Amino acid sequence: MLLILSRRAVLAGVLAAGLFGFASGQAQSEVPDPLPSWNEGPVKKSIIDFVTRVTKEGGPDYVKPELRIATIDNDGTLWVEQPMYTQLAFALDRVKVLAPQHPEWKTTQPFKAVLDGDVEALAASGEKGMVEIIAATHSGMSTDDFLKIVGDWLATAKHPRFKRLYTELVYQPMIELLVYLRANQFKTFIVSGGGQEFMRVFAEKTYDVPPEQVVGSGSATQFETWDEAPVLMRLPKVDFIDDGPGKPVGINRFIGRHPIFAFGNSDGDKEMLEWTAARPGLSFMGLVHHTDGVREYAYDRQSKFGKLDKALDEANAKGWAVVDMKKDWKTIFPPEAKTP
Amino acid sequence: MLLILSRRAVLAGVLAAGLFGFASGQAQSEVPDPLPSWNEGPVKKSIIDFVTRVTKEGGPDYVKPELRIATIDNDGTLWVEQPMYTQLAFALDRVKVLAPQHPEWKTTQPFKAVLDGDVEALAASGEKGMVEIIAATHSGMSTDDFLKIVGDWLATAKHPRFKRLYTELVYQPMIELLVYLRANQFKTFIVSGGGQEFMRVFAEKTYDVPPEQVVGSGSATQFETWDEAPVLMRLPKVDFIDDGPGKPVGINRFIGRHPIFAFGNSDGDKEMLEWTAARPGLSFMGLVHHTDGVREYAYDRQSKFGKLDKALDEANAKGWAVVDMKKDWKTIFPPEAKTP
Repeated sequence: MLLILSRRAVLAGVLAAGLFGFASGQAQSEVPDPLPSWNEGPVKKSIIDFVTRVTKEGGPDYVKPELRIATIDNDGTLWVEQPMYTQLAFALDRVKVLAPQHPEWKTTQPFKAVLDGDVEALAASGEKGMVEIIAATHSGMSTDDFLKIVGDWLATAKHPRFKRLYTELVYQPMIELLVYLRANQFKTFIVSGGGQEFMRVFAEKTYDVPPEQVVGSGSATQFETWDEAPVLMRLPKVDFIDDGPGKPVGINRFIGRHPIFAFGNSDGDKEMLEWTAARPGLSFMGLVHHTDGVREYAYDRQSKFGKLDKALDEANAKGWAVVDMKKDWKTIFPPEAKTP
Repeated sequence: MLLILSRRAVLAGVLAAGLFGFASGQAQSEVPDPLPSWNEGPVKKSIIDFVTRVTKEGGPDYVKPELRIATIDNDGTLWVEQPMYTQLAFALDRVKVLAPQHPEWKTTQPFKAVLDGDVEALAASGEKGMVEIIAATHSGMSTDDFLKIVGDWLATAKHPRFKRLYTELVYQPMIELLVYLRANQFKTFIVSGGGQEFMRVFAEKTYDVPPEQVVGSGSATQFETWDEAPVLMRLPKVDFIDDGPGKPVGINRFIGRHPIFAFGNSDGDKEMLEWTAARPGLSFMGLVHHTDGVREYAYDRQSKFGKLDKALDEANAKGWAVVDMKKDWKTIFPPEAKTP
């Protein structure tokens, strides 16, 4: 609810800005600020300049509305990804819930590590272990049942540090950015390494992004008929990894157009940003750099989740926008709802 | 141009119908007909009844606009698929164009059959032969280059019987249906066994369906960097077959919502229709039955392309709408453009 209210307020500002001929050069006091949670600075200015230029009819950089495709990463770009990806937290909780049906897990890695809370052994299981955990917790049910399981978890699970629902730990400045883009007739897509169906559960309510505009990694599914009722069963098999070089592949597969605006925060977004930059004509490439250990987290080149190393060098070399979270963002999360 | 004009006329009718409170029970003379190329009959009535019911706010069958997902097959449902799928005609033409670069094709099947015009030998090569032809003609270039090749071909290639561009051999009644659905805030998706990127070349101009709403079979692509310029290369590997049980899988993968309206014409659409019927609440399932050998083609249970057998039995058993092309459609194709 708090999100919806704040998004409405932002939208009102954006619309008013449009009505009164908002332009980046204009004095801020005259029109509502479309990005109120962003401090004035080069990143905010570059976003507004870009949107102003591509929406200016008759201008040299004008882009028709149907070509205003924006692709935005999720983990670490729209919501928190520390101390671990939210979807991994979900999977670990599911291992605990499902353990009674799998007595063998008590003695089998990587499940034993999860049940014992043995972080070191879990880390030692590496990517292979993660894939096994995801397969065991994300398959064997219908797609409808999976959506319900994720929805139930998101409704109650809380972040270990902030003690808030994960869907409340979204970045307020980025929510404003999504609203601002849509008010300027951009079509906003999420393009994330995270699970497509996992994200679809909350993307519409949390980001106003409908399921058909959520691109992500996915499991194979199979059409089956049970008692004459068709179901799609989730198989323990990854169908597509929407990360790194997979992002342009996913963008082409799901959207079929070149983005003109892309935002990410890690090396997994590098190729998406390169693909966006390769568009003939003006395009915008942005990265969120997590520099605020007090209000959120500070991490980049050495991080286990959301490692930002090569993409940061490339952004600096090519002049892409890099958000300094500590400096550029007035607030990080939406305000907490008051107890009624 | 002729299409755009006729679509505008239909849209004007649909909008006027909305303004004047069109309802299916109302006398036809009072309001413009949203489906003027459809003869009065049970199929036309069932379409209009369905749309009226799901858009009636406060009614028992009301569906919110964002859930009004329509999935429509392409070959044989929106455009001609005889004497062979248009994409196959494209592939055969490409074999001839590429033959000088492949001297070995002169003696290797199935390519020899194509070059010799030997239909029997081509048929004998079966599905394996088709896959080889598609792989040889649909891969090895960038996605951008492929779009250009298809676009160039569609701009000149003509249908052997009707001597018109393939994009003019679309069914006028179905174009009106797409316009009518969108005027009632449906989001119209193409869900076809045909190649996704092939269809995207013409879907926007021909059907007003943007690339991101075209779901189809697809080749794998790979992100590469050539002289610092990123490209997506098409690989000779099928990534996804959007046909039969693959259609619900594709719908879930690309759209992530249940259709409430689906139209097909062959057994390849059976599972899509079953999936649509399985939705809790009202849904519409329709089939085009090709019964008009004079104006178009007459085929069903024995056809090599667009075989309609099991799906026809199921439609009859379950009361799905079945278009009798000869009886239900006043016109088949849009009128030919006059020479200026």
